[in-house]
Amino acid sequence: MWDREPVIKAALGEDSADIAIYNGKIINVDTLEILEGYSILIKNGYFAYVGKSIPEGSCSKNTIKIDAKGSYISPGLIEAHTHIAYYFSIDEFVRYALAAGTTTVITETSEPGNALGKEGVDIFLSMTKSMPLKIFITTPCFAPLFDALETSNAPTVDQTISFFSNQRVLGVGEAYWPKVIKPDSRTAKLFEAAENYGIKLQGHSAGARGNRLDAYFASGISSCHEPITTEEVIERLRRGIHVILREGSNRHDLATASPVKEMISDFRLLSASTDGINARDLTKGHLNRIIERLIELGWNPFIAIQMLTLNAAAVFNLDDKMGSIAPGKIADLCIVDDLSRFNPKIVISNGKPVAKDGKITIDMKRVCYPKTFYNSMKLKRLKRSDFRFPTGKAGSIVLSKEFVTIYKQIDTDNLPGDTLFYAVFDRYGNGNAAYSYLIGTGITTGAFATTLNWDCFQLSVFGKTIDDIIAAANRVIEAGGGIAIAEKGKIIAEIPLPIGGIISDLPLGELAEKEKEAEDALFSIGCKIKNPLTRFQTLSFTGLPFAKLTDKGLIDVKNKQFIDH
Amino acid sequence: MWDREPVIKAALGEDSADIAIYNGKIINVDTLEILEGYSILIKNGYFAYVGKSIPEGSCSKNTIKIDAKGSYISPGLIEAHTHIAYYFSIDEFVRYALAAGTTTVITETSEPGNALGKEGVDIFLSMTKSMPLKIFITTPCFAPLFDALETSNAPTVDQTISFFSNQRVLGVGEAYWPKVIKPDSRTAKLFEAAENYGIKLQGHSAGARGNRLDAYFASGISSCHEPITTEEVIERLRRGIHVILREGSNRHDLATASPVKEMISDFRLLSASTDGINARDLTKGHLNRIIERLIELGWNPFIAIQMLTLNAAAVFNLDDKMGSIAPGKIADLCIVDDLSRFNPKIVISNGKPVAKDGKITIDMKRVCYPKTFYNSMKLKRLKRSDFRFPTGKAGSIVLSKEFVTIYKQIDTDNLPGDTLFYAVFDRYGNGNAAYSYLIGTGITTGAFATTLNWDCFQLSVFGKTIDDIIAAANRVIEAGGGIAIAEKGKIIAEIPLPIGGIISDLPLGELAEKEKEAEDALFSIGCKIKNPLTRFQTLSFTGLPFAKLTDKGLIDVKNKQFIDH
Repeated sequence: MWDREPVIKAALGEDSADIAIYNGKIINVDTLEILEGYSILIKNGYFAYVGKSIPEGSCSKNTIKIDAKGSYISPGLIEAHTHIAYYFSIDEFVRYALAAGTTTVITETSEPGNALGKEGVDIFLSMTKSMPLKIFITTPCFAPLFDALETSNAPTVDQTISFFSNQRVLGVGEAYWPKVIKPDSRTAKLFEAAENYGIKLQGHSAGARGNRLDAYFASGISSCHEPITTEEVIERLRRGIHVILREGSNRHDLATASPVKEMISDFRLLSASTDGINARDLTKGHLNRIIERLIELGWNPFIAIQMLTLNAAAVFNLDDKMGSIAPGKIADLCIVDDLSRFNPKIVISNGKPVAKDGKITIDMKRVCYPKTFYNSMKLKRLKRSDFRFPTGKAGSIVLSKEFVTIYKQIDTDNLPGDTLFYAVFDRYGNGNAAYSYLIGTGITTGAFATTLNWDCFQLSVFGKTIDDIIAAANRVIEAGGGIAIAEKGKIIAEIPLPIGGIISDLPLGELAEKEKEAEDALFSIGCKIKNPLTRFQTLSFTGLPFAKLTDKGLIDVKNKQFIDH
Repeated sequence: MWDREPVIKAALGEDSADIAIYNGKIINVDTLEILEGYSILIKNGYFAYVGKSIPEGSCSKNTIKIDAKGSYISPGLIEAHTHIAYYFSIDEFVRYALAAGTTTVITETSEPGNALGKEGVDIFLSMTKSMPLKIFITTPCFAPLFDALETSNAPTVDQTISFFSNQRVLGVGEAYWPKVIKPDSRTAKLFEAAENYGIKLQGHSAGARGNRLDAYFASGISSCHEPITTEEVIERLRRGIHVILREGSNRHDLATASPVKEMISDFRLLSASTDGINARDLTKGHLNRIIERLIELGWNPFIAIQMLTLNAAAVFNLDDKMGSIAPGKIADLCIVDDLSRFNPKIVISNGKPVAKDGKITIDMKRVCYPKTFYNSMKLKRLKRSDFRFPTGKAGSIVLSKEFVTIYKQIDTDNLPGDTLFYAVFDRYGNGNAAYSYLIGTGITTGAFATTLNWDCFQLSVFGKTIDDIIAAANRVIEAGGGIAIAEKGKIIAEIPLPIGGIISDLPLGELAEKEKEAEDALFSIGCKIKNPLTRFQTLSFTGLPFAKLTDKGLIDVKNKQFIDH
């Protein structure tokens, strides 16, 4: 039977609804009104009725009746750009995000793409198909960013295009702008196919200004999450680009971007997202914390909610299916007492109650990643002879502010005090390794090893002594990937990520503890970097300026070439 | 080559633009701002650059340079619902609409669908594929509305579904609400297929209220052009439905609907359209007249323009391709001095100048409809013996206010003074004919015959004498369709519509003259109806209340059954 037919009948009172909510204060994000004393009927996953009195005949003893007691009813929250296809097991993300009121997420998949290839994206799509939280994806775009400079296991352009026929693939993610304004044949092929399939292009325009921004958007890009300042936001909005403001574990841009609210009177092209969240933050909330932050920064609460619901849905044309409380839309909602402390008392997703007072109320099976994903490390245990650091005049990488790194030539006979040995080993079986030095972490003893290393997720190691580096690196290799911190030959903290070398199989609470232990361990060996676990994920990432170490060597990002190679 | 690549290069100044416009006052409908002293570059059909100064290197001697002299630059106008697939030859529509600033139209196709079947829609799609004005379609929905009560040549449900894979098919048009809230298996099949193909469902909710409106929208309908009053508009907006206000030749709803502007602060779900326009009105303008009317009614001019551009584009998710002046979007614009007299000085469509000072400036070929379309009348000349009007107690149709008709039983021995003989003949070859009486036209002499007769386009005839009816009907039959008015055995006016019995092959100016002559002729034989040519199109239409005559008989619309049959 047509799945809308029972919904129509419930609205007419010819069939009983699954859920009836009465006495609610509906936040109508379509008209930006509050509708007090309203009732809602839900049937077969959809809103059937939203109005002042429940139609006769539409409630039976099987109907779940919920007295909203005058509380606000918000649409379920929607995230238009994030990174949840790695680090935590996806079911763990869903448990916590649902409890926080999130009912739909569109996530980047470059992480399983780079680490596990086409199969990594395929498996993610199939394991998230029937979750109680709707998950859509954007595909990896340029993976790896520069073939000549780095190695990953990423899908080919043709493999990426093969994803486009899946209805849950909505976009191509994070198209690095310098590659778009100088398009090669792969870019042209990918973007042309996306346009033909009706697949949206999500932008990554950090650093582009003036006519380079026009050139970038001339490619067909329709949204971007990179603007940080009010000026950056407004110059994208004026070009018809949907701007997704960021407030997550890695970036806190709302404070600098918020004055834009005084400059525009039409907010449809604005939404907000975490752009990625760590385990500790996720245990405390999700998009609900962004709404609170917007309100704290002086945004109209109803516009804040519109940004995280209807506007976020519109980024990928999902707004006629979800994003507001309206008949025919998928029944996602949060009942909440106080908007400035957005803690949902009840969450309904896909027409089913899923969470109450911050805890999920449904049985959710643990997901099982394929066994083969546990064997992604094609690297033998390292030994001293594997380390061949350059001597004499040598290249180093110096941490600068924010996510910036700069190149510095040093003399190994006269090393600056704060210098670490630094190496990157290919783990996909090609045998590459590159060696340099790292300055500016503050680390004075021990070593750090990680495969949580954007975008290629190679094994990155740095430390004061080769022995500690070997200890940390081998622990990560044995665990099948992850993070390890060694001091005096012993492992003092670790985060195993055995699935593809990028995903934990621990419950989120345990992962959050290990995250805290790892951060504390880094501080204990002298690390002075704020939020070091995030910062250290970016040290090989050729999408950020200026000097990087990949499995192939030391990279001058600006000029896309090797240094000293 | 990727068609975006030259656009990117033009923005960077690495290639010369096709058109450069400078010194413009851009109406930015994305942010609702006016950007003064701005320049625009256009390349390969797209906006390449929109900013304060033209990038060096992007203009050559081949670049057309336009000094906007401080005039407003509006996005090209977009119509989200209309009926232009019949009556005038499509190229004639394009000539006049383009000159008025319209660059995109989404049109209903139930007219060629009902009169010419699947081929009628197919040919319309293929002949409009490469027009200088972008034409998208919605397919017929329930055609004919009631199989048992009327006959047309309409495509089957499976044939309708076969249209969905065409990228220019955006929706299913005008889904008559009573059939949706009592869905049969054909409705379910059509709507389910539409959802799977990502095809939108366009509503037709006239007369639905309260929970019947919820039930209707529970089907997945996402827009509606029927609301007339402020209350009708607001109750649809609150249900997340895009409302397309009407101001065309048939309906003038803006005055009654306009107070809604004081009730909402978010206008994204509002647009406006003609919902059909006659030849005389089209010679005077198109959507530009709607903008003027909105401004006259006190709307913010920039919101009025947003409604006819960005918002109209969003109805069918076209808003990331068009609807604002932004890099990467299709280059459609109007340069206009005065918004309250919206007469474009220059119109650019698909990146090419197409009109100047109200006249098109491009060569446009006359379109050729297939020869077979000229032979759609499967009906022989009528003779006196073909007319078998009931005698004694008989059913009649009485014209009431607006588009309403009511049933009345009369005594043919004692006919009211204002009574006409009224018959409908099937013209698709099944031999049906139905006979009744028509009261309330005011006509005192002569007869009227037409195939311009929603939705089935059967031959409808009414008049004072059988001789005049025969004269008018046979003139229409000989012409292959159209309208004829006879008096005392002579044809006193006619509008030949030889293509499918629904489309003229005359230039629009001549058609407008014939339209005027036909209306004048109707008034000369006593017709007292306002706008009679439109009104008379609806006399067989089972989508309007209450009594109708089809080829099968006299219909009680409310109860979907025959009267006196």
